[in-house]
Amino acid sequence: MTEQRLSTWETRTEWPMAVLAAAFLVAYAWQVLHLSAPAWLHLALEIALWVIWLVFAADYVIRLMLAERKLRFVWRHLFDLLAVALPMVRQLRALRVVTVLRVLNRKASTAFRGRVAIYVGIVTLLVSFAAAIAVLDAERGNPDAGIDSFGKALWWTLTTISTVGYGDVYPTTWEGRLVAASLMIGGIALLGVITGMIASWFLERIQQTEDTVNKTVRATVHQETDELHVELVTLREEVSRLREQLANQKPS
Amino acid sequence: MTEQRLSTWETRTEWPMAVLAAAFLVAYAWQVLHLSAPAWLHLALEIALWVIWLVFAADYVIRLMLAERKLRFVWRHLFDLLAVALPMVRQLRALRVVTVLRVLNRKASTAFRGRVAIYVGIVTLLVSFAAAIAVLDAERGNPDAGIDSFGKALWWTLTTISTVGYGDVYPTTWEGRLVAASLMIGGIALLGVITGMIASWFLERIQQTEDTVNKTVRATVHQETDELHVELVTLREEVSRLREQLANQKPS
Amino acid sequence: MTEQRLSTWETRTEWPMAVLAAAFLVAYAWQVLHLSAPAWLHLALEIALWVIWLVFAADYVIRLMLAERKLRFVWRHLFDLLAVALPMVRQLRALRVVTVLRVLNRKASTAFRGRVAIYVGIVTLLVSFAAAIAVLDAERGNPDAGIDSFGKALWWTLTTISTVGYGDVYPTTWEGRLVAASLMIGGIALLGVITGMIASWFLERIQQTEDTVNKTVRATVHQETDELHVELVTLREEVSRLREQLANQKPS
Amino acid sequence: MTEQRLSTWETRTEWPMAVLAAAFLVAYAWQVLHLSAPAWLHLALEIALWVIWLVFAADYVIRLMLAERKLRFVWRHLFDLLAVALPMVRQLRALRVVTVLRVLNRKASTAFRGRVAIYVGIVTLLVSFAAAIAVLDAERGNPDAGIDSFGKALWWTLTTISTVGYGDVYPTTWEGRLVAASLMIGGIALLGVITGMIASWFLERIQQTEDTVNKTVRATVHQETDELHVELVTLREEVSRLREQLANQKPS
Repeated sequence: MTEQRLSTWETRTEWPMAVLAAAFLVAYAWQVLHLSAPAWLHLALEIALWVIWLVFAADYVIRLMLAERKLRFVWRHLFDLLAVALPMVRQLRALRVVTVLRVLNRKASTAFRGRVAIYVGIVTLLVSFAAAIAVLDAERGNPDAGIDSFGKALWWTLTTISTVGYGDVYPTTWEGRLVAASLMIGGIALLGVITGMIASWFLERIQQTEDTVNKTVRATVHQETDELHVELVTLREEVSRLREQLANQKPS
Repeated sequence: MTEQRLSTWETRTEWPMAVLAAAFLVAYAWQVLHLSAPAWLHLALEIALWVIWLVFAADYVIRLMLAERKLRFVWRHLFDLLAVALPMVRQLRALRVVTVLRVLNRKASTAFRGRVAIYVGIVTLLVSFAAAIAVLDAERGNPDAGIDSFGKALWWTLTTISTVGYGDVYPTTWEGRLVAASLMIGGIALLGVITGMIASWFLERIQQTEDTVNKTVRATVHQETDELHVELVTLREEVSRLREQLANQKPS
Repeated sequence: MTEQRLSTWETRTEWPMAVLAAAFLVAYAWQVLHLSAPAWLHLALEIALWVIWLVFAADYVIRLMLAERKLRFVWRHLFDLLAVALPMVRQLRALRVVTVLRVLNRKASTAFRGRVAIYVGIVTLLVSFAAAIAVLDAERGNPDAGIDSFGKALWWTLTTISTVGYGDVYPTTWEGRLVAASLMIGGIALLGVITGMIASWFLERIQQTEDTVNKTVRATVHQETDELHVELVTLREEVSRLREQLANQKPS
Repeated sequence: MTEQRLSTWETRTEWPMAVLAAAFLVAYAWQVLHLSAPAWLHLALEIALWVIWLVFAADYVIRLMLAERKLRFVWRHLFDLLAVALPMVRQLRALRVVTVLRVLNRKASTAFRGRVAIYVGIVTLLVSFAAAIAVLDAERGNPDAGIDSFGKALWWTLTTISTVGYGDVYPTTWEGRLVAASLMIGGIALLGVITGMIASWFLERIQQTEDTVNKTVRATVHQETDELHVELVTLREEVSRLREQLANQKPS
């Protein structure tokens, strides 16, 4: 029993879910950045956010029901549970970027092979944008906050992911610090993922070398001794014919 | 003489010691975080801390006595001596986390193989928690200190281990700076341990490839020439029979 | 069709363009650092900068015209388009350093092999100098800026590329922050390039080992079995001669 | 002509020079840390520092004279020239640590093999101590400086080498910033050296695997075919004896 039904569902919903997650991020960013939006637009975006969130929650419940071993599913998809539960807190909505990243990540291991730079670039851009939006949303309410515009939020994101951390802007609210924590932990995790990717390529390459050399050894030795076999067989036939010749001579 | 008695003792006391170290950390954290604890509870925790510390001191003395070469033991277990001597200073009690990490580390090299991420995650979480508790304990007494709550202590730990270091919170007392120093040096050491782990995996993998290829070469060449041997033996028998045949013809 | 004309042009203009880019940087640095320059010198440098920029723009247009597949050229040389378009903004002129780096980079993969340290050192020096000039140019106009001399600009560059980021000096204008962003992103990219270089060396080395071992296997097995062939041929001749001898005996 | 005389001299003076450099550092540290030293002690230390410096200058001149190709020597030992010329500036005296490190480095490539951690630890400790002394010496004169005690100098060194850089203490004088620059550049260089060390170990290991497998292939194939040779020779002898037997039968 290898969770057939679950993986079928996940394969089918993978892309729609990534698109929905992207739509969620766009709606959230719109809401945060377009402060002067009329009330109806703000409301429409809020409703859209909640509807998309409901779809994600439903997806999680369906996957949990499809799973044969419920407990193991919850344990192995702890991150998904967080991604569903946390965006209910306003400032953590940007965590939805994780869903986009997961799809990207699955594609990356096959499609981006050897193009780590592109993969890392896209992930960094996506995460930075999400973090900047989220930290702006979190900090804007605080009159003492240094991060009061999208530009400053981007600048903060940059000084943080480069680990320079001048300290001219930094989150002052607990929601902002939670965003910063996600960004920092995400950055460390990304480094881990890249290291793992490169390491697994090396191990694969070594495995491939092992296989190629083994194959060469087998093929070369086999082919060369095959020729020796042929010659030995010919020789035996010669000796056999010699014996026949001798036997025929007997009567003489 | 390979320190048989010592290693037997260490293997047996490994888990109890790790559990005791964890209990020590919990008691210490309780004392630090539960400020409004009644006097009797505070005293009970203090007594528990000292009792556990005595057990650790006794363990060190027993191991020293079991060791055949005392000086070599002290030199090779300098870190253990520190871990016993330092927690007498209140703010360095959190260093006891090292004992838990040592057991984890020994398990890690076998159990977490290929799951560096999990290992690093657990170690980072443990060390961060211990550092946050310790720095809070150290800094709280100083009225000028920025770190005056567990939340701020955690935030400081995060900005420190990510090396971002905004400078909005930082230790101001010498005890707090000692905690920070341990955390920074520990972080650099962790990076070293991870690099070493990955490197040793590569070297092992290359060794394994070398062994596999060598084995393949030996097996393949041996098997193929064995068949040639068999054929040569058959040929020799043919020739022998030919000689016999020829010898039998003689009288004719 | 492999963009023959384009690559011929690029190979021929590679060095002149790098020299021009270096001249551009020198003229720009001169303008920034020599504040008390007479008006005519300032104007002359400005004209030189614009003339060199025109040459670069012309080079881009010519390459675009030479390219068989225009769209693919624009997409693949997005960076070149930026390097032509951006230096029109005064403070981003230092980005021209990228042109020098590109030539250096192409040479690096062959000439600096095994001397990564030298390559990284030269790149870091060039980029640091360009960043210091650019940030000084951007910040000097702002009365609140901490970066008001070339020395402070260099000190800022150093604290930034080492990611220490004390926060005693940092850019306060948007142009300065754009320079900082370029420096940080460039630093991360440089780390990526170095990692890629080292990784590709390893993969090449493994490939080389695979080839050498395969060759050894083939050569050794071939040579040794060749000797066996020779002996078998000799044996067959012996047996043939035996048959002849036997045939000659027939009449007896 | 392989600079025989030069390398003989360098091998012989290696250890004395390292000891002298260590003595220089100790005398310098003493002078800096023991502020209340009587005038005669301060003078004695100053004289000792100048005498040792003269020995180093003399050593450089002697090596330059021993070198066959003077210009190449100066170019290749640019670092040594700096190490002789710079300590004339008071605050750069700590750079003398480089001489100790060079000897350590040469030993490291053979003795510390596989113990990178120990090597890195010793280098980091030495460099940190030297940097703390130097920055204290540089900053103490400035009334606005944050670094006014050896403890604070050590704390600054730690926040700098870990790249955390809170910004609570940082150098404010140009001499102090030069020390910081040396420390940062030294740190980046150390990372490079470690990476290079690990990389060269891998390449060596792969080379060793290549050699071992090649040897196994040659030995195995040679040995096995040798046995076949022996059998073939025996067979030929059989056939030869058969021919003799047949020849002897002729007269019958």
